[in-house]
Amino acid sequence: MNNFEFKCPTKIIFGADTISKIKEEIPHDKKILITYGGGSIRKNGVLKQVKEALNGFDYSEFGGIEPNPKYETLMEAVNMVKEGGYNFLLAVGGGSVLDGTKFIAAASKFDGEPWDILSKGATIHEAIDIADVITLPATGSEMNCAAVISRNSTKEKLAFASEKVYPKFSIIDPKTTYTLPEKQTVNGIVDTFTHVMEQYATYDVNTPLQDQWALGIIKTLLEEGPKVLKDPQNYDARANIFWCATCGLNYWISLGAVQDWSTHMIGHELTAFYGLDHGETLAIILPSLWHVMKKDKMDKLAKMAIEVFGANEFLPKSLLADIAIKKTEKFFNKIGRKTKLKEYGINSKEAAVEVKKRFSQRGTVLGEKGNITPDIAYEIVLNA
Amino acid sequence: MNNFEFKCPTKIIFGADTISKIKEEIPHDKKILITYGGGSIRKNGVLKQVKEALNGFDYSEFGGIEPNPKYETLMEAVNMVKEGGYNFLLAVGGGSVLDGTKFIAAASKFDGEPWDILSKGATIHEAIDIADVITLPATGSEMNCAAVISRNSTKEKLAFASEKVYPKFSIIDPKTTYTLPEKQTVNGIVDTFTHVMEQYATYDVNTPLQDQWALGIIKTLLEEGPKVLKDPQNYDARANIFWCATCGLNYWISLGAVQDWSTHMIGHELTAFYGLDHGETLAIILPSLWHVMKKDKMDKLAKMAIEVFGANEFLPKSLLADIAIKKTEKFFNKIGRKTKLKEYGINSKEAAVEVKKRFSQRGTVLGEKGNITPDIAYEIVLNA
Repeated sequence: MNNFEFKCPTKIIFGADTISKIKEEIPHDKKILITYGGGSIRKNGVLKQVKEALNGFDYSEFGGIEPNPKYETLMEAVNMVKEGGYNFLLAVGGGSVLDGTKFIAAASKFDGEPWDILSKGATIHEAIDIADVITLPATGSEMNCAAVISRNSTKEKLAFASEKVYPKFSIIDPKTTYTLPEKQTVNGIVDTFTHVMEQYATYDVNTPLQDQWALGIIKTLLEEGPKVLKDPQNYDARANIFWCATCGLNYWISLGAVQDWSTHMIGHELTAFYGLDHGETLAIILPSLWHVMKKDKMDKLAKMAIEVFGANEFLPKSLLADIAIKKTEKFFNKIGRKTKLKEYGINSKEAAVEVKKRFSQRGTVLGEKGNITPDIAYEIVLNA
Repeated sequence: MNNFEFKCPTKIIFGADTISKIKEEIPHDKKILITYGGGSIRKNGVLKQVKEALNGFDYSEFGGIEPNPKYETLMEAVNMVKEGGYNFLLAVGGGSVLDGTKFIAAASKFDGEPWDILSKGATIHEAIDIADVITLPATGSEMNCAAVISRNSTKEKLAFASEKVYPKFSIIDPKTTYTLPEKQTVNGIVDTFTHVMEQYATYDVNTPLQDQWALGIIKTLLEEGPKVLKDPQNYDARANIFWCATCGLNYWISLGAVQDWSTHMIGHELTAFYGLDHGETLAIILPSLWHVMKKDKMDKLAKMAIEVFGANEFLPKSLLADIAIKKTEKFFNKIGRKTKLKEYGINSKEAAVEVKKRFSQRGTVLGEKGNITPDIAYEIVLNA
């Protein structure tokens, strides 16, 4: 096991009808800006519950944060925060709203050009307090300090992380997900699946407990995913899927293990360039990347085939890895997510050329062994 | 899944040669009291490493905290803290030292009779900052806010918990466990096993992920436990066992699930009365309690038999539960821990009478369903 350090100060408040607890968690002297996306939290009553809980507090609203939150929009919020003197941000919505709010929190206190936080990894010394009512089981943003932001003008999608933007608290009420469009439920399951695999399917440094936990999330997704699609108001299945999503990216499963994240990095380019959903890009790239990088990931994929898919442990490792790849594609297909670029009407060669060009320009090299060069990325996208 | 709230602000610093990091974590203006137990941390060089890291800091020492830390000893430390104006406690040693230090931290700021913290569950409003270098994989105390304290004069062993006594940081260097006496390594494995089972082997509220994680710890203990006993300097096995111990009682495996803790409560009485090691009492009580309470725990024990011990899923549940009980006893025996009171020279009827008397006097009723009355506890101890 590798050495590691870990601290997550976020308080999780999980369960049915917990939104009202906001009022016990935010100090009464705070000037609050509620941030959200489109209209879904109006339609499903979540915004109403939030406002009822904030009765007597000093708050305003900033709506319109997009999926794949845009730098341009977020900078409008930064101006509002600075002019209005807001000192607490409450994100209400999915991971995009929360990611955007993390950026607003950091950029509002940043001395310099805020884009540097994303493009140059500039250090964040201070941020406004944030918290959230998270309504989409997918990004795990509710229990980590990372965020992914897009910029319209340059078609870029970049990430940052800082312990200054851990949510003070996150409220997870699985009932808020009853009315999710099926597409978003599916994307969330694929996102969680891929988060887990980015932390598991690397090379082995002798972390059997972390492996068990990672595969435990996968087993739970395989069992509970079809249940929520069949019965969107199955509370326990919704709760289990949400807790999988949170634990898929709070790093509990990968402390001391080796991480990858190249599927995400390649996927981000496809979102930035073609506007594909994040979950769609992951379902496209993950199996192809495993296929191209099979040699490096063989031990973990073989273990997955045995433990999750019940494959015979005496089969050759290469065959076991193939089984893990095939069964993963099959699961994505089963829950309604296509895994080939052409099925989304995209020419894989054109996409491969574009991704290679961008990675070459930025000098991007990916993978847990730092061996996914722009040429290998080309191959992965071409094969997708 | 049940509703839950969770927050653990402790920073974990895990890995080889990490003790020197103390100096980056404690503010330089603190007046530090190092607390420890017997001489083992002198012999194995841990105290030396701690003092080297604290070069330039203002610190003193308080040694002599016993296994099953005694109220009488801890109150001496409380006096020293108050008189000396110490404002940071650094526990160096096992769970007993850390538990004792949590009590010192709370009692030093407590307005009233400190014993009330244990006997009456008095609320703790304030505590001195604490941190630790934990050297025994067992109690999980390094990542929770609970402690168990004994009192000589009344032969009592009682617990308290308060979020004010979360360690600021915990340093876990698996190399510090290379020189542990085998008995302590074994007790730690039994303790971790039992912690997990107190949170798992209850009734099912549909928490498949938590179940997977709990059983993941058990599988890892079964694999890695014999390795550390065979080769005490196997770093990875030591690291895996330590991380199992920490995760066995940081509550990650039981959020939203139902907990028991009756094996511990009965075991505490046996320690208080007969001076048995904590790990010994657990190995004695757990199988007997499962046997007596089999009906209530059948679903989870059957699942354990299938997932951990590879039992045939088509066997009757009652038989599967018996398999889980037998295999658990067998594992304890295999790593050198006896599971019957008479094997420790104790008459089980006499012990049963004593436990029943104590529980009756205090009105103690245990178990996840509140159905382990003093009479049932009598049966459990008699059967042990």
